[in-house]
Amino acid sequence: MSTAASAPPVCVLGLGLIGGSVLRAAVATGRSAWGYNRSPQVVGAAVADGFDASTDLTAALTRAADTDALVVVAVPMPAVDTVLAAVAEHAPHVALTDVVSVKKEVAAVVTAHGLSARFVGGHPMAGTAESGWSAGTAELFRDAVWVVTVDDGTDPGVWQQVADLALDCGSVVVPAESGEHDAAVARISHLPHVLAEALALSGAAGGDLALGLAAGSFRDGTRVAATAPALVDAMCEGNATALLATLDETLEVLRIARDQLADGSTRDLTRAGHKARRRYEQRERRPITGIAPGDEGWIERLRDAGRRGQVWTR
Amino acid sequence: MSTAASAPPVCVLGLGLIGGSVLRAAVATGRSAWGYNRSPQVVGAAVADGFDASTDLTAALTRAADTDALVVVAVPMPAVDTVLAAVAEHAPHVALTDVVSVKKEVAAVVTAHGLSARFVGGHPMAGTAESGWSAGTAELFRDAVWVVTVDDGTDPGVWQQVADLALDCGSVVVPAESGEHDAAVARISHLPHVLAEALALSGAAGGDLALGLAAGSFRDGTRVAATAPALVDAMCEGNATALLATLDETLEVLRIARDQLADGSTRDLTRAGHKARRRYEQRERRPITGIAPGDEGWIERLRDAGRRGQVWTR
Repeated sequence: MSTAASAPPVCVLGLGLIGGSVLRAAVATGRSAWGYNRSPQVVGAAVADGFDASTDLTAALTRAADTDALVVVAVPMPAVDTVLAAVAEHAPHVALTDVVSVKKEVAAVVTAHGLSARFVGGHPMAGTAESGWSAGTAELFRDAVWVVTVDDGTDPGVWQQVADLALDCGSVVVPAESGEHDAAVARISHLPHVLAEALALSGAAGGDLALGLAAGSFRDGTRVAATAPALVDAMCEGNATALLATLDETLEVLRIARDQLADGSTRDLTRAGHKARRRYEQRERRPITGIAPGDEGWIERLRDAGRRGQVWTR
Repeated sequence: MSTAASAPPVCVLGLGLIGGSVLRAAVATGRSAWGYNRSPQVVGAAVADGFDASTDLTAALTRAADTDALVVVAVPMPAVDTVLAAVAEHAPHVALTDVVSVKKEVAAVVTAHGLSARFVGGHPMAGTAESGWSAGTAELFRDAVWVVTVDDGTDPGVWQQVADLALDCGSVVVPAESGEHDAAVARISHLPHVLAEALALSGAAGGDLALGLAAGSFRDGTRVAATAPALVDAMCEGNATALLATLDETLEVLRIARDQLADGSTRDLTRAGHKARRRYEQRERRPITGIAPGDEGWIERLRDAGRRGQVWTR
């Protein structure tokens, strides 16, 4: 368990919305923490706000290696490869995590750089409509869910460090295997974007008459279609395999509903959909108890707990 | 133009959320108004709240015929036939409108009862998660859109009366042909429900892990799946032809997106969906000017204005 000030330092690579918020939250709990960003403007803003930030990646990583810091990769997916090459060169033995959404994709790049031994993936389920350093806050992760991966061979000491950082940031931790995480977020994060785009298109195809009649169901159902297209592309394309699987499943659900509607009934769809929404509304975050990282079978037991919707807390 | 107290009386048949709110709003603007409901409990509640209500349909309609009132059909679709049979018997020449969603379906029953000469359909785009008399308020329609149909042969005097009632209730009026109304609401009201049910099913199929990770996009995208299934069935099944057309169109959009995702890109979908959502966000309610009901070509001109997203106001 982390007691913040005695916990390892934190080196955050990338100071956008998520990375910038991790840096703020780590500092807020009394940890030693510093950040890197390639943009002098971003670093200048962070320094002006009183944070320890630099455009010198080598220096940031050398310091991490010297102090046995936890390194948090928080750059956009296209930059992960470059950043991990620098980690492999300057800090190859540090405890390493990331906050970059799709977990199998990141894990593959980590493995390609020979960094998998002390890597544990992460994904805080938090965000805002804004992006960039200025949009971040130390409170972004408060009461959010933060996935920490439990893949085969996970180092229990690093897992504990990553979970501690998530808890220090105010989140609860859901343990999940990387592939199961990616399948889950395809369902609850990426598919919603695809359906929102399709719904927006249907409304617009009805012209100004249809858009003028649109009320709450259309407004809420299309809300995330307002997200910048490039961000949605990055999420969906990065998780293409899992998203294709859930999209095919949903196409089949809609095809069956279509045929039943042609026969005059939407009864099966609405009963099942209502029940599913109720299950979502009634979900609970029960705490995980009686498992410590490193215990016999801890990886499979944490995965099972995560599958049951349980969370790792203090 | 209505000046409320001098406007025709209003007889509301059905005192649920919508009918009960019409009765309250009509009274609030100084009109003479009374209501009918078949349930003594509902009528008792309306009377206790100070309104003129009765379980005697014949008496309510005889009074409407005697005072040349505007009769508003506000019962659920399955009860429309019975109520219109009573109108045909006791008040066959009154000005008649309805607030029952799908417009071609209601118009067909009206025609079957020989009441089409003085009928103009209506659809206030307002509601709450609650239902019944107790959920109604005089303010329910404030700033809402209220569709008033402009079908071939529409009586301009009745159209003006129905539009005046909508304006008295605080709404703006969108003129639309019945079939075009039904196609539009399939896109912006019924399809959102179908997609929300399907999205909820995809989340629940991912089990407690997926539901535990669900955040804003899933919450908003499934919100209307919490609607009582029977209400969704009534909406969707009553507008099956138009909903099938838009659902088929959306299935094709999703199939194309699926194949492009399999090829590695969601770019076309996200660009188009984002543009569609922006068009929705930027829609404006420009007022209709220079057309009076009964003018040469007024029906086609009002339809055109509605298609452009224009609204009839005072």
